[in-house]
Amino acid sequence: MTGETPIPTSWVGPIRLSGDVVGEQSVPLATYESPLWPSVGRGARVSRLVEDGIRVSVVDERMTRSTLFTAPDAATAVAAARAITARIDELAAVVSARSRHAQLIDIDTEVVGHLLFVRFALRTGDASGHNMVTLAAEGLMAAILANHPELEYGSISGNFCSDKKATAVNGILGRGRSVIAEILIPAAIVEDQLRSTAARIVALNTRKNLVGSTIAGALRSSNAHYANMLLAIYLATGQDAANIVEGSQGITYAEERDGDLLFSCTLPNLIVGTVGNGKDLPVVEDALQRLGCREDREPGANARRLAAIVAATVLCGELSLLAAQTNQGELMQSHLLLERRTEAGA
Amino acid sequence: MTGETPIPTSWVGPIRLSGDVVGEQSVPLATYESPLWPSVGRGARVSRLVEDGIRVSVVDERMTRSTLFTAPDAATAVAAARAITARIDELAAVVSARSRHAQLIDIDTEVVGHLLFVRFALRTGDASGHNMVTLAAEGLMAAILANHPELEYGSISGNFCSDKKATAVNGILGRGRSVIAEILIPAAIVEDQLRSTAARIVALNTRKNLVGSTIAGALRSSNAHYANMLLAIYLATGQDAANIVEGSQGITYAEERDGDLLFSCTLPNLIVGTVGNGKDLPVVEDALQRLGCREDREPGANARRLAAIVAATVLCGELSLLAAQTNQGELMQSHLLLERRTEAGA
Amino acid sequence: MTGETPIPTSWVGPIRLSGDVVGEQSVPLATYESPLWPSVGRGARVSRLVEDGIRVSVVDERMTRSTLFTAPDAATAVAAARAITARIDELAAVVSARSRHAQLIDIDTEVVGHLLFVRFALRTGDASGHNMVTLAAEGLMAAILANHPELEYGSISGNFCSDKKATAVNGILGRGRSVIAEILIPAAIVEDQLRSTAARIVALNTRKNLVGSTIAGALRSSNAHYANMLLAIYLATGQDAANIVEGSQGITYAEERDGDLLFSCTLPNLIVGTVGNGKDLPVVEDALQRLGCREDREPGANARRLAAIVAATVLCGELSLLAAQTNQGELMQSHLLLERRTEAGA
Amino acid sequence: MTGETPIPTSWVGPIRLSGDVVGEQSVPLATYESPLWPSVGRGARVSRLVEDGIRVSVVDERMTRSTLFTAPDAATAVAAARAITARIDELAAVVSARSRHAQLIDIDTEVVGHLLFVRFALRTGDASGHNMVTLAAEGLMAAILANHPELEYGSISGNFCSDKKATAVNGILGRGRSVIAEILIPAAIVEDQLRSTAARIVALNTRKNLVGSTIAGALRSSNAHYANMLLAIYLATGQDAANIVEGSQGITYAEERDGDLLFSCTLPNLIVGTVGNGKDLPVVEDALQRLGCREDREPGANARRLAAIVAATVLCGELSLLAAQTNQGELMQSHLLLERRTEAGA
Repeated sequence: MTGETPIPTSWVGPIRLSGDVVGEQSVPLATYESPLWPSVGRGARVSRLVEDGIRVSVVDERMTRSTLFTAPDAATAVAAARAITARIDELAAVVSARSRHAQLIDIDTEVVGHLLFVRFALRTGDASGHNMVTLAAEGLMAAILANHPELEYGSISGNFCSDKKATAVNGILGRGRSVIAEILIPAAIVEDQLRSTAARIVALNTRKNLVGSTIAGALRSSNAHYANMLLAIYLATGQDAANIVEGSQGITYAEERDGDLLFSCTLPNLIVGTVGNGKDLPVVEDALQRLGCREDREPGANARRLAAIVAATVLCGELSLLAAQTNQGELMQSHLLLERRTEAGA
Repeated sequence: MTGETPIPTSWVGPIRLSGDVVGEQSVPLATYESPLWPSVGRGARVSRLVEDGIRVSVVDERMTRSTLFTAPDAATAVAAARAITARIDELAAVVSARSRHAQLIDIDTEVVGHLLFVRFALRTGDASGHNMVTLAAEGLMAAILANHPELEYGSISGNFCSDKKATAVNGILGRGRSVIAEILIPAAIVEDQLRSTAARIVALNTRKNLVGSTIAGALRSSNAHYANMLLAIYLATGQDAANIVEGSQGITYAEERDGDLLFSCTLPNLIVGTVGNGKDLPVVEDALQRLGCREDREPGANARRLAAIVAATVLCGELSLLAAQTNQGELMQSHLLLERRTEAGA
Repeated sequence: MTGETPIPTSWVGPIRLSGDVVGEQSVPLATYESPLWPSVGRGARVSRLVEDGIRVSVVDERMTRSTLFTAPDAATAVAAARAITARIDELAAVVSARSRHAQLIDIDTEVVGHLLFVRFALRTGDASGHNMVTLAAEGLMAAILANHPELEYGSISGNFCSDKKATAVNGILGRGRSVIAEILIPAAIVEDQLRSTAARIVALNTRKNLVGSTIAGALRSSNAHYANMLLAIYLATGQDAANIVEGSQGITYAEERDGDLLFSCTLPNLIVGTVGNGKDLPVVEDALQRLGCREDREPGANARRLAAIVAATVLCGELSLLAAQTNQGELMQSHLLLERRTEAGA
Repeated sequence: MTGETPIPTSWVGPIRLSGDVVGEQSVPLATYESPLWPSVGRGARVSRLVEDGIRVSVVDERMTRSTLFTAPDAATAVAAARAITARIDELAAVVSARSRHAQLIDIDTEVVGHLLFVRFALRTGDASGHNMVTLAAEGLMAAILANHPELEYGSISGNFCSDKKATAVNGILGRGRSVIAEILIPAAIVEDQLRSTAARIVALNTRKNLVGSTIAGALRSSNAHYANMLLAIYLATGQDAANIVEGSQGITYAEERDGDLLFSCTLPNLIVGTVGNGKDLPVVEDALQRLGCREDREPGANARRLAAIVAATVLCGELSLLAAQTNQGELMQSHLLLERRTEAGA
């Protein structure tokens, strides 16, 4: 039996952006958790009250797949690792021959005993690139096995990629788009809109996001709830939303500047695309168009724009929740109020 | 502007279950990634060919919230931690007074310098319990602050909970339902249905899921793609799907037994509910009813049933993908084939 | 061929202590890295200029060993886990029968597929307890296997203990002594002695220890160099210094209080003993006596005193290094200076 | 007061080596834990019974220091990161001008909000390189600040290095020597010498080292007790033994090959040197000479040899302990026996 699961969706904002993406942009959030809408909405309102709004920087982009080979022994695996890395140009040609959009840009190897993990990094244009890297990896494995009869096929994916898993490798070697969103909020706006102060938000961020995450045993992650915003915008824009697992690993950082609040969200692992699986649903297509992510640009530019908007959306929701948590009782009150309002159709 | 994002959904299975849930059960999967349906379907078919099918054990259930207090100094924080832990019965009464369903069952404290983190664990009946623990935590904080004038409010959530984040604390102290799904597959079925052998699946699980995850820097997690199945069934059953972040931390384990395959998925952090936000959408309500999770049972039993079904679904998809990855070229071939079939409306 | 490796050793301090240990205490540091002595010495000097000195709190103490059993299937493993936990009193008697000093205080179980990990926590008096828990675990395994014929021996140690490894479980469930050392330093002393300010040390701690450790992918740890002080005092007091691996997982936390500096080191996993292997070397025995850790006290009190002194020593070195790193060029300059001075015999 | 702490030291072996280091080599182990000697000795005996002995591969070598800068905002930090990376040749010249031995080989940057972490990787010849990279980093920071007036000094070390801390970055980007030691042991030798079988050792390694470490929340590490061997040989050879913290992060891997045992230890982070602090003690100098690590070779070759010997030593101890743990009761029995023997002066 087939059908559809309809997720309630609202457009929130507009958010004011500058830096790598300029302008005001509303964003669609598909979620069962309705308090998310006004929460992101409050952050968006703050962004519009600040001249530059949220400044976004797209730092890097790549998609990865790690293949696994077995060798007769460790020394052979190490020698093969060196040879494969040295042949990157030749292997890049293998990729280009199979795909117009995929482009091999880096190879990282790791040897454990006689196991050889080879992690390929590719540019994948405007696609998130899951299928593109798998297809490329198939061709690369075949080429490598042809050149290295001493190796055997281990797996098309060796978990050193790593897809939809919270790991350290993605942030350190890169996977997906790496984006930083930042805002400098005058003290008066912090007080009026967020009912807090820079000092209190900084203290909370240090105690909760940094120290609290440390004792929880978090991994390369220090934030309050990136996963909520990511899920909602990923669903509304046709993304493979299971990528919120690694996408939600990121760092909220705040400092006080003469009473003003410098607040940033650093998201090293945003897997987003504007073409590919899920993007041809009419609702999704419409959403991507309204987000300005279906324009005729150089390959990758639409997805970069989407990544920047996603990061700004995350910042809006993160800022709003942290501010609320500086005040005893505010979180629950607003949840109850909002859910009541939402149920009443507001 | 509001509306709906319709996620394509198919019912897959039935899966044969035994242990804490007995019978055959189809499951709904809402996803943009259509290859997931036949992949889980293959695992379900295997389960029906085995007499006991997939045996599920629900090991534990609880929902948590960690509050944060500040003390003037560490010694005061330590003393308060001891006093609060000792007063658990009194604090349990505070919770019971505010809610019929919530029940305080445990308190864990951790002190860092003069910061005091207090992690409350509650039974929350058939609800996943996000709001219930926040409401309870508010009452608990008020009660604690009234008794401890030396403490100050820090935050209603101190990230030691931890919600929608990949951490170590959830698996070790518990959060959500902890479930193990296991199946013993005769060698002939492994060969016919999964085109592999027990020995090859065991080797792949060790090399990829255990060693590969280790070098990736994974955290208390060793599996191929739990996140995919979790997202799909969470969306189709109205769950807060951002909880796949911690839900997907789990361990696939396989051993060979005289040529047969003993294969298990251990999922310590499944956050699921059968009542609450998102559960009153008609499609979701219908799904929960068909899953047998809206029966008139003792509080928690419907959610336990759902958790068990979710774990069995994860096992079906995990088994199928690992088997495919033991064969060079099979993964891409089946992806391409399935996507073509799906696009053709099959 | 046997002999001795003589590690250069200096007594540093005295450190002024209050809280669970009161008085002034010099400490022995055995190290090849001579700059450590003046660095800890500077911290000690600061402690003597503050009325309360360093306030130490010993929060918890226990030693652990996790045994591993195998069951025919997961359901059997889960049932056994429950039965074993329920029999803690009976198992405690097994431990007491084998040892005067060991006392079973807690059992934690974790089941992965059909593997059953049982983690025993014991009081071990003044011994660090490595051998005591192994001996106890042997008796406990025998008792459990006698009662559970459905289980088989897996391993006397299942790495869920975990000994001499950086893991999350030790901090969360406890292993060794958990100690917090804290000091409140007036602004003038920060300036005069540490050539810095509270604000600058707080900023550095947040940026380097908290954010820097997060991006490095640290695990439940946020400090500059606990390992250095731990190694030196462990060697000088006859400890099993390989325990610095988990011992060095800890959190430095700093806040500004009206210009003064509130600075703390939280060390959840200090494995120390005042009796046992290595403690009967004359130099070690002399060191333990001078530290006041060979007194006639209730079991565990001498080791608790040692743990508190160790934590205070860590604080002295951590404070001094962080202060130095707030100033460009100071670290290298002092290293060069000190090594020259040391070489000159100062 | 100054003096010496004499650590009991025995020479164990010889170990038979092949691959990057060829021959038989005894090793010095300084430890308070005397059972370590016969344990490593048993592994050494096994190595001599196998024709190739232990095959060692040195995969990589580098030392790192991560500096920290602050920028006015994230966009500026990102721009500076790109500019600094692009200027690697110019910065390499800065390093060469300050040191004959240090050579800059790589730069990795990471930006969090407006914080810029710059991680420098250097060749440091036969020195472990702690001081060399600090000295180089000072020069590099000065050069960068001169070129980038928009940046400010943050810290000479930003914890993204990372020194004497268990993190993910060291294994992934490299720090110290990366070494693999491997041995293929015929079934008969496994049985006679280790009283076990390949199948049982493989099963134990998977269950304990891989699964057990996973549930413990270990980080890029899966072994039984690397820290013990590392500490003992580090102390005896004048190393900065606090580096066992990251050094002990490594992976033991075992497979059965037609009844024989293929067993390896992969150690990505061995920080060792044959010159520098601690190396001029007569006992240490003598040890390094006997290890063949004071020969007149190209820079780095002596330290590489030492790293290979260290890894082989780790393998001997790891193999012996794992074999013992496959047998119920053996560990304690041998501990008791050995300690009695040792106490009796054997």
